[in-house]
Amino acid sequence: MVIRLADLAGRVGADLRGDGDLEITGVNGLREARAGDLSFLANPRYRPLVAATRASAVIVARDFEGDAPCALLVADHPDAAFARASEAFARPEPPLPPEGVHPSAVVDPSATVAAGARVGPGCVVEAGAVIGEGTVLRAQVYVGHEAVVGPACLLHPQVVIREHCRLGARVILHPGVVIGSDGFGYTADDRGVRTKVPQRGIVDIGDDVEIGAGTTVDRARFGATRILRGAKIDNLVQIAHNVVIGEDAVIVAQAGIAGSTVLGSRVIMAAQSGVAGHLEVGDDSVVMARGGVIKDIPPKSQVMGFPAVPQKEAKRAMVAAARLPEMREALQDLRRRVEALEPSRG
Amino acid sequence: MVIRLADLAGRVGADLRGDGDLEITGVNGLREARAGDLSFLANPRYRPLVAATRASAVIVARDFEGDAPCALLVADHPDAAFARASEAFARPEPPLPPEGVHPSAVVDPSATVAAGARVGPGCVVEAGAVIGEGTVLRAQVYVGHEAVVGPACLLHPQVVIREHCRLGARVILHPGVVIGSDGFGYTADDRGVRTKVPQRGIVDIGDDVEIGAGTTVDRARFGATRILRGAKIDNLVQIAHNVVIGEDAVIVAQAGIAGSTVLGSRVIMAAQSGVAGHLEVGDDSVVMARGGVIKDIPPKSQVMGFPAVPQKEAKRAMVAAARLPEMREALQDLRRRVEALEPSRG
Amino acid sequence: MVIRLADLAGRVGADLRGDGDLEITGVNGLREARAGDLSFLANPRYRPLVAATRASAVIVARDFEGDAPCALLVADHPDAAFARASEAFARPEPPLPPEGVHPSAVVDPSATVAAGARVGPGCVVEAGAVIGEGTVLRAQVYVGHEAVVGPACLLHPQVVIREHCRLGARVILHPGVVIGSDGFGYTADDRGVRTKVPQRGIVDIGDDVEIGAGTTVDRARFGATRILRGAKIDNLVQIAHNVVIGEDAVIVAQAGIAGSTVLGSRVIMAAQSGVAGHLEVGDDSVVMARGGVIKDIPPKSQVMGFPAVPQKEAKRAMVAAARLPEMREALQDLRRRVEALEPSRG
Repeated sequence: MVIRLADLAGRVGADLRGDGDLEITGVNGLREARAGDLSFLANPRYRPLVAATRASAVIVARDFEGDAPCALLVADHPDAAFARASEAFARPEPPLPPEGVHPSAVVDPSATVAAGARVGPGCVVEAGAVIGEGTVLRAQVYVGHEAVVGPACLLHPQVVIREHCRLGARVILHPGVVIGSDGFGYTADDRGVRTKVPQRGIVDIGDDVEIGAGTTVDRARFGATRILRGAKIDNLVQIAHNVVIGEDAVIVAQAGIAGSTVLGSRVIMAAQSGVAGHLEVGDDSVVMARGGVIKDIPPKSQVMGFPAVPQKEAKRAMVAAARLPEMREALQDLRRRVEALEPSRG
Repeated sequence: MVIRLADLAGRVGADLRGDGDLEITGVNGLREARAGDLSFLANPRYRPLVAATRASAVIVARDFEGDAPCALLVADHPDAAFARASEAFARPEPPLPPEGVHPSAVVDPSATVAAGARVGPGCVVEAGAVIGEGTVLRAQVYVGHEAVVGPACLLHPQVVIREHCRLGARVILHPGVVIGSDGFGYTADDRGVRTKVPQRGIVDIGDDVEIGAGTTVDRARFGATRILRGAKIDNLVQIAHNVVIGEDAVIVAQAGIAGSTVLGSRVIMAAQSGVAGHLEVGDDSVVMARGGVIKDIPPKSQVMGFPAVPQKEAKRAMVAAARLPEMREALQDLRRRVEALEPSRG
Repeated sequence: MVIRLADLAGRVGADLRGDGDLEITGVNGLREARAGDLSFLANPRYRPLVAATRASAVIVARDFEGDAPCALLVADHPDAAFARASEAFARPEPPLPPEGVHPSAVVDPSATVAAGARVGPGCVVEAGAVIGEGTVLRAQVYVGHEAVVGPACLLHPQVVIREHCRLGARVILHPGVVIGSDGFGYTADDRGVRTKVPQRGIVDIGDDVEIGAGTTVDRARFGATRILRGAKIDNLVQIAHNVVIGEDAVIVAQAGIAGSTVLGSRVIMAAQSGVAGHLEVGDDSVVMARGGVIKDIPPKSQVMGFPAVPQKEAKRAMVAAARLPEMREALQDLRRRVEALEPSRG
């Protein structure tokens, strides 16, 4: 696809500085762009890359100063403008499986596949399950007994949803997601031999939730593990039994939430963070990368470290820790000076 | 389902305080329970929730004091009593696939499927593999060449067991478990180009082992990676090649065990912990959450932190670290006082 | 299989000390070996195990001293010699699926399956996809629309490759690997409700890359997430969108690389480590186990800790931290001595 730069400027709502007849054939990052590419500068740390880019044009903010070796498109929000430009050049979305059930899929006669739903090759849908209107099971998906998948969901290849679990509308599950595996619960006898505690509950997922590749969400011991409306979960995250994830919460890759913990609305758990079991993290709180929460966190907190403490406190402790070797020297120096002052004991 | 509270009290072996004619229709946590629900108080930190619960009845311990807005069932072990009550209300287990091989499964003619075994839709069982008596492959499971799955196992959808690996009796594998992937081993030449070291061993899993969703267990370089009888492993755990996991060991979510390390019997690895390679962790030792073990650990140790040290030592270090800013101030104060004592150098 | 020890010595290029007529039937570690087994000593920490081994013979280095209860094979590189011996006793590799497409696989008529490629049972290959010459899709693999898998690749069961992604030659993907899941990107409105940012790019994987079980590699927002030639990635690793992994880089289990970060050639990320987004880690740098990188790292660095700092600095800080309780006591002692020196204020 080829689009004139002046036409692109119009499409993305930017002011043109340079040759509007330039032919743009794709989009790319500043570093990787070649002749014909449109790039963008949103994060100020990449500003030095503009001077060296091989892009034919770059989208910049209104306050951009300095030279560029190419045409510029000046926009209020370079990031959003670039997103619109990317759409113009994007590969088409892959075609969906045909409506109805692929001949290679195994759908129990007692399951309900709504009008306009698409059950792709190799899928298995068990007895009593419901697949909502317009929902897509791309391929090799498993939907267990009496599980309910709402309308307009997109289940990528090799998703597993175990029995009785429920998904709302417009839920997106990436490849390898597991919904409804047993919670991790045992009783131990005197010799340490463990007996499984039945995990009888379900997982209940609200509308507009998206869950990343390889993430696991355990079913509740009783009742439900809940992921509320709008929550976004990244790859390889572990959600234990009876957890509640609040509305519009964000959980980044490789984080883990232990059993029965409740995350409030809009909580952000950064990458590789964790929360111990039976805790509450208040609305709008942020746990920084690698943070490990071991007690309740009030709303609107920002915590870091392990054990996680408020960000200010954690940074003061880090600064102090960095000065430790220097403190040791100061202490030794002082000891010598005190000894010099003390009456000799000889 | 509806059960009279007095009947429930009898079933779970509890004493009734309140109206035995109450109709109970389900079970739930104190916070989520509604009218008609039975709840329970086992963890003392939830005691304040009893006063506010909307449950119709709550199971409490013999030493429970204070008011409750509902009927009580008094039991020696509220947790166990609640588990029994939950069973009474539990959704029925989903039906198993029919005995024998589902028409959509691909089972090599040289594989052995024992009497009473159930190979569900979309499964692949390769040449020479053995599926034990009464074992269930729910759906879309892969069992590799000459792998042996013992009797009465339950393999959830989309489990992979690679060639030659062996499972004992009553093993439960959750969705997405991978058994027998290659260990991570290479030799490097002078330019850093790596050549794969063949991973010729197997994974050998004992009786009554349970492994959580998405967990990966690598095959040995030679010999076997071993998971001994009764070990319980949670979700997204990594077990490297030639590791030995002791009997009745417990490994919580997102922990990782590096190559050739041996965990003793009843070792507990808490969430997000790790052990470096070629180490031994003694019987009955506990590695706390996030603990990172980098040397051998004697039996019955409790270690925490990274590098992991005995719990007492780690806590003392934490307390000291928390007082660091205060120590810096004390040091500066002392320096001023020493300067005041020293003869002036002017 | 039985091989005379003298014959084995010849095959692996070692000098025989002991009875060349001994019949060797297998290989194993020093601890696990039984009569008939050949073992080896490469890592000096296992030297004490030689005296107690039940192996019939052990491969040792030229500088080995001390007694052994068995025959010895003396070699320049015991590890390499043992690898050769292991091959001699190895179980045969499992047979490949037959050439062509298994009848249970679903391959779109517009896909290209090259001569000598093998598409095993239960696989799904979408429209326009290309499977290279001699490549093996073991079973239940998904290859999305217009994805390109190069020649001589080995895709283990239940790998997912989403649309448009590209693999070079001789790539090995272990069970459960996900290539091309959406990157984790959203815009948020004033109330914290998030809208998905389309992830329009691909994943581009070079020749001779190997990726471990359960690892997830997100597609780029635009352009490509790149894993360059020869990189080796272990199990349960997370690679975010637009990341670049350098040639011959090594990423150990459970590590995570955040969005748009670039790892140089031969970088080593040890187990459970992480790098924040939009950073560069220079060629030949090493991030130690659990290290968390939050700023750019120059080439040939060795960093550890979180935030990761050069190894020397981190170790000095660890030593100082370990002496903290002792420093507190020294500080208190000094205060008492200064007080004794100060004129009384009474």
